[in-house]
This record gives sequence, C-alpha cells and structure tokens, in this order.
Amino acid sequence: MTVDLIKHAAEDADVAFAARVSTLGGEARFTEVSKKDSGLINFLMRDRHGSPFEHTSFTFYIEAPIFVAREFFRHRAGWSYNEESGRYKELSPVFYVPAKGRPLRQVGKPGAYRFKPGSAFQHFISQHAHKVAYKAAWFAYKAMLKVGIAREVSRNVLPVGIYTSFYATCNSRSLMHFLSLRTQDEKAKFPSFPQREIEAVAKGLEDDLALLMPETWKAFQNNGRVAP
Amino acid sequence: MTVDLIKHAAEDADVAFAARVSTLGGEARFTEVSKKDSGLINFLMRDRHGSPFEHTSFTFYIEAPIFVAREFFRHRAGWSYNEESGRYKELSPVFYVPAKGRPLRQVGKPGAYRFKPGSAFQHFISQHAHKVAYKAAWFAYKAMLKVGIAREVSRNVLPVGIYTSFYATCNSRSLMHFLSLRTQDEKAKFPSFPQREIEAVAKGLEDDLALLMPETWKAFQNNGRVAP
Amino acid sequence: MTVDLIKHAAEDADVAFAARVSTLGGEARFTEVSKKDSGLINFLMRDRHGSPFEHTSFTFYIEAPIFVAREFFRHRAGWSYNEESGRYKELSPVFYVPAKGRPLRQVGKPGAYRFKPGSAFQHFISQHAHKVAYKAAWFAYKAMLKVGIAREVSRNVLPVGIYTSFYATCNSRSLMHFLSLRTQDEKAKFPSFPQREIEAVAKGLEDDLALLMPETWKAFQNNGRVAP
Amino acid sequence: MTVDLIKHAAEDADVAFAARVSTLGGEARFTEVSKKDSGLINFLMRDRHGSPFEHTSFTFYIEAPIFVAREFFRHRAGWSYNEESGRYKELSPVFYVPAKGRPLRQVGKPGAYRFKPGSAFQHFISQHAHKVAYKAAWFAYKAMLKVGIAREVSRNVLPVGIYTSFYATCNSRSLMHFLSLRTQDEKAKFPSFPQREIEAVAKGLEDDLALLMPETWKAFQNNGRVAP
Repeated sequence: MTVDLIKHAAEDADVAFAARVSTLGGEARFTEVSKKDSGLINFLMRDRHGSPFEHTSFTFYIEAPIFVAREFFRHRAGWSYNEESGRYKELSPVFYVPAKGRPLRQVGKPGAYRFKPGSAFQHFISQHAHKVAYKAAWFAYKAMLKVGIAREVSRNVLPVGIYTSFYATCNSRSLMHFLSLRTQDEKAKFPSFPQREIEAVAKGLEDDLALLMPETWKAFQNNGRVAP
Repeated sequence: MTVDLIKHAAEDADVAFAARVSTLGGEARFTEVSKKDSGLINFLMRDRHGSPFEHTSFTFYIEAPIFVAREFFRHRAGWSYNEESGRYKELSPVFYVPAKGRPLRQVGKPGAYRFKPGSAFQHFISQHAHKVAYKAAWFAYKAMLKVGIAREVSRNVLPVGIYTSFYATCNSRSLMHFLSLRTQDEKAKFPSFPQREIEAVAKGLEDDLALLMPETWKAFQNNGRVAP
Repeated sequence: MTVDLIKHAAEDADVAFAARVSTLGGEARFTEVSKKDSGLINFLMRDRHGSPFEHTSFTFYIEAPIFVAREFFRHRAGWSYNEESGRYKELSPVFYVPAKGRPLRQVGKPGAYRFKPGSAFQHFISQHAHKVAYKAAWFAYKAMLKVGIAREVSRNVLPVGIYTSFYATCNSRSLMHFLSLRTQDEKAKFPSFPQREIEAVAKGLEDDLALLMPETWKAFQNNGRVAP
Repeated sequence: MTVDLIKHAAEDADVAFAARVSTLGGEARFTEVSKKDSGLINFLMRDRHGSPFEHTSFTFYIEAPIFVAREFFRHRAGWSYNEESGRYKELSPVFYVPAKGRPLRQVGKPGAYRFKPGSAFQHFISQHAHKVAYKAAWFAYKAMLKVGIAREVSRNVLPVGIYTSFYATCNSRSLMHFLSLRTQDEKAKFPSFPQREIEAVAKGLEDDLALLMPETWKAFQNNGRVAP
C-alpha cells in the first residue's frame, strides 16, 4: 500500500493562531510562535475545542485495495476524495494477497474481534484461493473488454481485493478523527477494532501528522487519542 | 435492486413553514397550508434557496451491487449510511448480471459517454464471463471460510458485482442533489452521465420524493433539475 | 426562551435497526424490537459507533437571543437552519434581560471560567444598563424605519440581546454532540463551559431526546456524555 | 472591512491532478501542467464535477460587523471558523456606519429587493441614529464591565453593527458556492440578492481566488457562476 503526502499547509502554529483569535481578535496574527503554544494545543485537545485544528490541509495520494477504500470513504466530514474510475479507465492487475504475517483467524464477537495467526495450512489455502479467484476475475474482465464490452460493465467481476488509487484531502481535526477509529493503540481512551489493512494506511497518515504537527500529535497521543 | 422507503418525515408543508420563518418568525407555525405554498416552493427552487428543503427526512433500505454502493457513498453532505459488513457477516451469493436490455457498448469520450446495445455475441460473452468469474470467487470465498479463515480476509476475492444492503437517510435537498447527478433527464439544465445501475436506484428514490413531496418534485422538474 | 419540538422521526428502534444492517443485512428490518436493543445501544455508544444514531430526525422551533443563535449556528455537521431575517421582516421588541438568578461575576481563566452570583448593586446596574441600551437601540431602529431606511440597514443598531427565532433540524448524533458541548454535567467525561443561556436551550432539547429516545439518552448519560 | 489571505495551498494544477486520478490513476501525479488543463477545468465546471476543486485550501482573516459574520457562518459544508469571542475578550469600539454611497431605500418584494440611493435627509437620520445607538450601547457595556459584570453578560447590549474578527478556511469549491450566493453579477445564471456588506467581503475573497486560481475563476465566470 502507498501513502504519499502530495502537499500540505499544516503546522502547529496554525492551530495556535486560530485559537488565539478567540481571545485576541486580530492581534492573534502578530503574536510569535512560542513554547506556550504547546500548552495551548494540549489544552484545546484535552477540553475538546476542535475548530482551531481545522485551519490546516493535507492532500494524500493513496493506493490500496477497494475494500480499504470502501472503509476510508465512509469518513465524510472534513474529507474530500477523487478516485481512479473503473468507468473511465481500464484497471491494472494489481491485487492484494495477505502476507504470511497477516493473522487469519478471528476470535471473539462482533465489535470486539481479536485476530490470531493462521496455520500453515490456512495460509496455503488463502494464497491459493486468492490467486485462483483473482486470475479468474482478471481473465473474465479482459475477455469482456476484448470483445468490446464497456469497462463499466466488465469491471463487475473484479474483486474488492484489486488495488485502486485516490487523492484524499483532510484537515488535522478530520485526520485525528480518522486515526481514532482506524488505529488500535493502548493509549486510546476508546477501543477501536480497525481492519489491519486500513490500519496500515492510517499509520502512514499518522506519520505525516506527527512529522508536520508534532505538538498536535503529542497532544492527541497524551489525551487518549480522541479527536477534539 | 431494491429501494424501500423505511420511514419519513417529509412533506411540502415542511418546506413552506421553514421558509416562512424568514419572513414571519414564530407566526410561521400557525399559518395554514395553502395553494400559495406551491408558488413559494417554486420560487425557492428557482432562486436556489436550499436550506428550507433540509427540514425533512427520508430513510431508505437499499439492496444493490457494491459498485453501485461505492458511487452512492460518495455523497457526503446530508447523507447518513449503515451498510452490511463483510467483516461481521458472511455475505450471500447474490450477484448482478446485466440483463439483455443493458446496453453494453460505450461510445464517445470520458465525461460524455453514450451507450449502445450489445450484439448477441457480446451478451453471450458477458453472461458467460460474469458467471464463471462469480462462481470462482464464491468458491474461493467459501473454501477460505471453511478452513477457518476470517470473513474480513476471505471476502477479498468477492467481486464488486455482489449485492450489499444498506440504510441511507437524507433530506429533500441532499436527495435532489443526488438525483441531479445520478439521473439523466432531458429537462436537466446540466448534463449527467450516470451509470445505468445507479440511475435505476435513483429512480426508485425519485418516485418516493414525487409521491411524498409533489410540489417540491414538480418545482425540481420545472427548474432544470438543479438541487437548490 | 422557547424550545418547541415541531416534528420528529426518532425512536430507539431506529438505532437498533440501522446497527443490525451491519450484522444481518436485510433481515434487520424484520427483527423485533426487544430488550436486547438497550444493550446494543449502550455498546454502540460506549465504543463510539456513531452512524446508527444518524437515521433519526428532530425539528425544533426555537426563540432565543441573537447571541445564543450565534453560538448555536456554529454547529455545522448534521444541523439545518432557517432563521427569521432582519432583512425581510421588521423585528419585534423582545429583549433578553438577565434575571435575578443569573450569576454575574466570572472568575477563573479562559476555557475554565466559573460564575458567581452578582451583588444587589451589580444587578441594579445590569437591569438599568440593559434597559437604557435596549431602548436607545429600539428607538434608533424605529426612527430609521420611519423615514424609509431599509430594514437591513436599520437593524445595524439592534443588540445581540434581541430575540430571534429559527427552525433547527438535527439527528440524535448531532444533537448529542451539541449537548456534550453546550451543557455542564458531572457525568461528563470531558469538561464543558457553556454560556448559561445556551445551556438553557440545550436542556430543552435534551428533554425531548430523553423522552423520545430513552435508551439512547440513558446510554449517553452512562457513557460520559460523549457523542458517539 | 478587512479580508486578508493568511495562507493557502491552492492552484489550478491541484484541480487538474485530482481530476486526472479518475482517468489515469497514479500516473496523474507525473503529468505536466499544460495548456490543456484550462480546457479540463472548464469541462469540470460546466458539467458540475465538483470534487476535484476541493483539494485546495484558503485561510482568510476577516474583520466585519456581526451582521455580516452571521450570514457568513450560515455556510457549513467546506468551511471552518474561529471567531473572536465576546465571552473571552472585551470587544473593541469599532462600529459600522453606512457611508454616503450606501443605498438606503429598498424597493420590491422579499427575495427580489432592489436598492436605491437614500435622500440627504435619510442619510442624516441614518448617521445620527447609528451614532446615538452605538454610543448608548458602548456606554452601557463599559459601565457593566466597570462594576465587575462578566463580559458574556455585558455584551448583550452590543449591536450587530459592531465589528468582529474571524479566521475562515475553505476550499475552492466551497468558496465558489459562497460567491454564487453572496455576489450579484450579470454573468450569473441564477439570481442572487446579497446584502451589500457581505458582498464587499465576497469580492475580497473572489480577488484572491482569481489571483491564485485564474483558470478556475475564469471557468466559474464563463459557466454562469454556478459552483460545480
């Protein structure tokens, strides 16, 4: 999976300046970035003052299987998307096959599943079943295209394990909301049970947040990973 | 495909009352529904006063292939969703196969495609390719489940042509925005090129709008099918 | 202040049905409302599964001073508004004057203010200052209207303490988000410091939530009053 | 009124790259900016493909009277705000008084008002009434503060003509939606009747759009000033 930061306008100072408009009005713009900003950002996070975190922007380019994109696009507020279209473009034969390290067995009940490593046999079946099904799907897709059937019809047979690509733009508030639901972390005040594959994408996003807005990320981490 | 209206709180009078708050304040509540409401609704639609159309609510239960759900869920503002989960539930083997009437050939360029009927040969290939690929996918899915591989892993191989089900809640404004993009109609001021399958769903939604809010629907139709 | 529930399509069963689509697909519609729903709703609230709470709708008619409406309208996601317009309508001379019970003194620092009762002298000054300023404003407003100056210009002089009226439509998720920020409650996991006047409105809204969706409200209360 | 662009991540190429993800997938990133982008942007605008315009970000600092801010904050989707707080900060005595050039007389009916110049007498009354009311309000405000009454109570008497300041962040799509409703222009396909003061702010915003995204602005202008 690919997570590339395409562009951004996002730094901790943006949060501090926006927050200070409340208390200083127009003077907020002329204050200096200072060590106190760290305390201010922590206070905003702790008491759930979310709006100052919205004056930032991240644009990512992401490649992931369709089943990941499906979960991703459920995030509506503060997110914008443009995705590769199976109507306008012939898709590429890149498919997701779980690696050896991917736990295959699910125990527990809905909403609280845990995962355990698969046996060698289970991995064998998984590899085999994925490949056979993917090949059959790809063959059927190409055959239909070959005889002149439209892309938007032919793609019906393609699996949710095929890769898609998309642009996603968010702000630091909507990004933290995403992270709170799509990562599992012992520092989290609320439990989450994200599917492992979207969590891998989420971690890529989180790296960029931590790099570009270190105080914001630290405050997120120290206050239970709850989006403000 | 299935489009069932589960519940609603939506009538033309809601629009009129909300609009009259602007001009009458609290007295708006005590006005009577009248013939003049039709003119008011038409005026709101024509001049793009959208907010009065938001004080309404429709909840639909929809069954459609994943590729339709994918386009549907791109609508963010004024829409809420809950979908059947391939993580929590074994999916059912119900797949979409284009019927004889479904045009198969696409001519034109991106953003302005038109569709023409497929030949008998193309339909033959389409039927065959769909069935073979769907069967291979289902067999691989069941085989993985059988040996104890988690649902969220096994489903990777399932095609976007398999059916899913979801609840969708919207208001008459967000519904009209959906209709303006997902239907093709000669009365439309702006061209749209929806995929035929989502258009079928859209028509189901539109029937309910026309039934429950006839003046709103008429105004939508008479003003170029642009959401206000 | 006035908080009237105009109409609604909101009950606990809506939440349960929407949530069950995840695990049961279309069968969700045919399940019965049962005692287990209470546990399901509590689980959804606790683990922050928010979307099932969105398939509900409340429309309120509210009368409150402009300074309350200003805070109210900051809530964007899941809220729709139509407000009395000072451009289209001559406003009515109804003004907010703090009653004897309204604490007048503020101690502490931004983000964590507490309020203490005003002295008799402070209340005297408050009453007097409000009345004098309101009368001057109203006189200036009427004088301008009298000589033919437009409403939208004349209203400049009207204070934020004058009453306005509006329709507001939300769902139970956006309503709980509002309540979590606009009420102060010892059961709340996160502190809030709402202004007393908007809290009064919020309590009116909360009464309707508790009445119409008792299990949802109970779960909200028992899980720290955090919107899911 | 003040409209300062604080920061931005917005250029025409952002729109073109995002749109090309649909047709090129990941290769979109490696295409060159070219003259063809202008045609692509015009096509997207004309056929109302809105999402590619969302991968951009503008943050403005704005000073305007409260009655302007009230209209501004009605824009919810794609807008973020932080405003100077009358609870946390003593406001400054800066008030809006209509200048000689401000038309004072309103003719026509709701939704279609036109404005005509005021007479010398009307301007005299306007100037006088504004000043008297503003002075009375300010005096009452300061008197209450002086005796220790909280800012959030004292401000009740302040008029909607007093200046406030705020940060507003948007993208080019939400900005164009704002402009389509808050400016009047003979090129507009749909009529708008914005209040003159918010139109002045809108023009400031539009200048920055035209400067930073000239092809987008040109397409907006040439396609009837309808937000895509």
